Amino acid sequence: MADRPTRRPRAENPKGFRDYFGAEVTERKAMLDRIAAVYQRHGFDPLETPAIETVEALGKFLPDVDRPNEGVFAWQEDSDWLALRYDLTAPLARVAAQYRADLPSPYRRYAMGPVWRNEKPGPGRFRQFYQCDADTVGAGSVAADAEICAMLCEALEAVGIARGDYVIRINNRKVLNGVLEVAGLLDPADPSRMAAERGIVLRAIDKIDRLGEAGVRALLGEGRRDESGDFTRGAGLGPEAVAVVMGFMAAKASTGAATVARLRDLVAGSATGAEGVAELETIAALLEAQEIGPDRAQIDPSVVRGLGYYTGPVFEAELTFEVTDEKGRRQQFGSVAGGGRYDDLVERFIGQKVPATGVSIGVDRLLAALRARGTAAGAAEPLAVVTVMDRERMADYMKMAAELRAAGLRAEVYLGNPKNFGNQMKYADRRGAAVAIIAGSDEAARDVVQIKDLVAGAAIAAGASLEDWKARPAQIEVARADLVAAVRRIIGR
Amino acid sequence: MADRPTRRPRAENPKGFRDYFGAEVTERKAMLDRIAAVYQRHGFDPLETPAIETVEALGKFLPDVDRPNEGVFAWQEDSDWLALRYDLTAPLARVAAQYRADLPSPYRRYAMGPVWRNEKPGPGRFRQFYQCDADTVGAGSVAADAEICAMLCEALEAVGIARGDYVIRINNRKVLNGVLEVAGLLDPADPSRMAAERGIVLRAIDKIDRLGEAGVRALLGEGRRDESGDFTRGAGLGPEAVAVVMGFMAAKASTGAATVARLRDLVAGSATGAEGVAELETIAALLEAQEIGPDRAQIDPSVVRGLGYYTGPVFEAELTFEVTDEKGRRQQFGSVAGGGRYDDLVERFIGQKVPATGVSIGVDRLLAALRARGTAAGAAEPLAVVTVMDRERMADYMKMAAELRAAGLRAEVYLGNPKNFGNQMKYADRRGAAVAIIAGSDEAARDVVQIKDLVAGAAIAAGASLEDWKARPAQIEVARADLVAAVRRIIGR
Repeated sequence: MADRPTRRPRAENPKGFRDYFGAEVTERKAMLDRIAAVYQRHGFDPLETPAIETVEALGKFLPDVDRPNEGVFAWQEDSDWLALRYDLTAPLARVAAQYRADLPSPYRRYAMGPVWRNEKPGPGRFRQFYQCDADTVGAGSVAADAEICAMLCEALEAVGIARGDYVIRINNRKVLNGVLEVAGLLDPADPSRMAAERGIVLRAIDKIDRLGEAGVRALLGEGRRDESGDFTRGAGLGPEAVAVVMGFMAAKASTGAATVARLRDLVAGSATGAEGVAELETIAALLEAQEIGPDRAQIDPSVVRGLGYYTGPVFEAELTFEVTDEKGRRQQFGSVAGGGRYDDLVERFIGQKVPATGVSIGVDRLLAALRARGTAAGAAEPLAVVTVMDRERMADYMKMAAELRAAGLRAEVYLGNPKNFGNQMKYADRRGAAVAIIAGSDEAARDVVQIKDLVAGAAIAAGASLEDWKARPAQIEVARADLVAAVRRIIGR
Repeated sequence: MADRPTRRPRAENPKGFRDYFGAEVTERKAMLDRIAAVYQRHGFDPLETPAIETVEALGKFLPDVDRPNEGVFAWQEDSDWLALRYDLTAPLARVAAQYRADLPSPYRRYAMGPVWRNEKPGPGRFRQFYQCDADTVGAGSVAADAEICAMLCEALEAVGIARGDYVIRINNRKVLNGVLEVAGLLDPADPSRMAAERGIVLRAIDKIDRLGEAGVRALLGEGRRDESGDFTRGAGLGPEAVAVVMGFMAAKASTGAATVARLRDLVAGSATGAEGVAELETIAALLEAQEIGPDRAQIDPSVVRGLGYYTGPVFEAELTFEVTDEKGRRQQFGSVAGGGRYDDLVERFIGQKVPATGVSIGVDRLLAALRARGTAAGAAEPLAVVTVMDRERMADYMKMAAELRAAGLRAEVYLGNPKNFGNQMKYADRRGAAVAIIAGSDEAARDVVQIKDLVAGAAIAAGASLEDWKARPAQIEVARADLVAAVRRIIGR
């Protein structure tokens, strides 16, 4: 029997992973660099934790079964389980506990990098993606929340979102708690009572975008039957309590002061609610002091995402311009960042509550917004390709490229087989080159070079009116000594 | 029986992993950014592959046992094994095969990012570390090798290694193959013969740094007995063959031309050897054309590291300045980058040889060199901390910080509990702040602020001569309106 031929390995990513090329890398990098500069200027320090954590430190995913939670990539090493981080918050909690004697307190840090989720991949859903977080650990003051909101405004503007194209909406979990007290769903003397009902309410209001007002009303009351006929049991609130909760989400008025007045009415009688309203007022005042008015940041009780998770102020950055979705409809771009206050971050390590607040920017979403707006930075510089007409003169070609680079231009020599000149031009085209330099033995003898303007050439080939392009010939001959100046002139146009 | 109390999770990294803070992050980033700019200017495009690959694509580590090779972090997912990449070359091979119809050819790419090795951690040895690679795939011409060498010179200078402080040493595997032919260890008509002996020779010359000339001579001949008494069998070469191999490593002469002449003599009669010598000459000529002389790059047959792996030119960047090692001895800093030509990169995927050449910079080593030279960039800007004297005036303090930032300075408000002013100054100290701003109710009434010069203060406290510092008071009072100008003046000193 003959040997079975060895099967070649497949050259493929694992499912749910992808590669990033060229501008996909540099545009994201340029965006993150600008955000980092804003965070730095606010006194935030970078922190880079490793990709791998112990499952024990990550916390949520205890490996009490053979295979730990499917949500993370995890594996066993000796007696420990290790896992890839699924966000940047869990590693921050570990760091805040591990180095608490050495870190400044409050500790402001930012972190940017990939995280991994072991989820079913889908179209446009990947199992590795970037996160970009800024958090302040150890500051109980809402000044820390206001600072994060102000910093978020600056970060959005720094990357290319114009003022007027975004708004930071701010809500507060304590106001919601006040509403729940008034609605009879939360007893300050015994917070453990009616936890199940409150869970239904929190999940219901979190779904307002999808279910609409009527759907949420149904879930606050007896329950809701969906289109398939399935019934979801509701929280069982009476009409007055339902009105209070719905009133909370619709409390946004034309001015911040009017919104605050409505909220104060809604939570009348609840100390927690009053505290939440006061916090919102303080945040608005602190933002005003930095000249951030309601055109950029505003109190908006309809921000409900994350209210179940956060313990105080909650904020969300929304882009207000319209884009065309995949079905051709115009719609607002929507949320690109969110955050808030959470005071139990470090508690599981040290047994003490540590106040913390932070924000996470959706890196892919924000980059998509910049591309939609045409304001993404970081594209590659125009490229000059020096072609090879005469293999023996490679040193001359490399010298030309070196001269162009010394002048700050991006330049390379064609390094494939130079025999077929058509292939060289195809290469220059695939590289998206702006110019090609051609210098054969004839040019060498006359001490000149030919410069092909590939942008003009492509425009003429694509049928641009000759009128538009006649001042710009697709190919020029210049003295060898004028190479750099001529390329610069063409690229600079 | 009472419930056992829940044990708190340990706030610790897994063994062999570490966190990077502040300047550790930004200095590495600044270095990589400068290298990337050089690579970009040479026409190299960034590529970012995911951390996770199939073990099948990584290739070396086939999971034919329950637990795959210990050198990688790997785990099973359904029927597939997945693993964290252990370098940036294996993912490049996959990409070059996967996208070969779409990528330009030759394909120049650079990649920077963490890789993971599942090895026993040791002091200073981590299981996650950065690599920084540039490779050209699909170019058989040694012009591609020369380009990599020239680019490496520029990259080293761009990050802060002065000309004269480094040298790129270039060797060629084909010359070694010629030497092996002359020594009777390689039969061009049947390369499979004497493979074991060649393996011994390759391993022996790779150890010259550790074993010295005598040790290598012994391994080329009958064998070597080490200090413990263990005997390693040698390649069994006769004295003449030993002389040829040793002559190869010692062939470096005072000029490149003299070195080439020696090498040509050594490999006389071997076609492969002559080809290798000609390649070295061509590379030297192409570098000269770009004005890179022997002060920066030179032919050096004593570069033997990697000769067993590469198939053509091999290069190594060495830093020639001295540093003090942990035992207090002065010694050359040594190698910070290496690379060469390898033509079997993509073959296992597509069954065809694809010529490739590339370089990998040792990120941690190079960064350590920059720190030793004091030329690492990327340190944080001087920080101004606005202290909180009066909790009610938080809006004013935030406005001060915002003004400083709007002027491009780095500034933050103290956000901890402001009660104890000493704690605020301790905080400013721990943050390494350059100035602290102090504005209590007295200052507010007089419309002034106090600015504490923490650098001057620390110098005076440390006993600097008063003479040196008397022109620089440790604290000044300025009009509130002059805050930004005054801080800028102090920080700018």
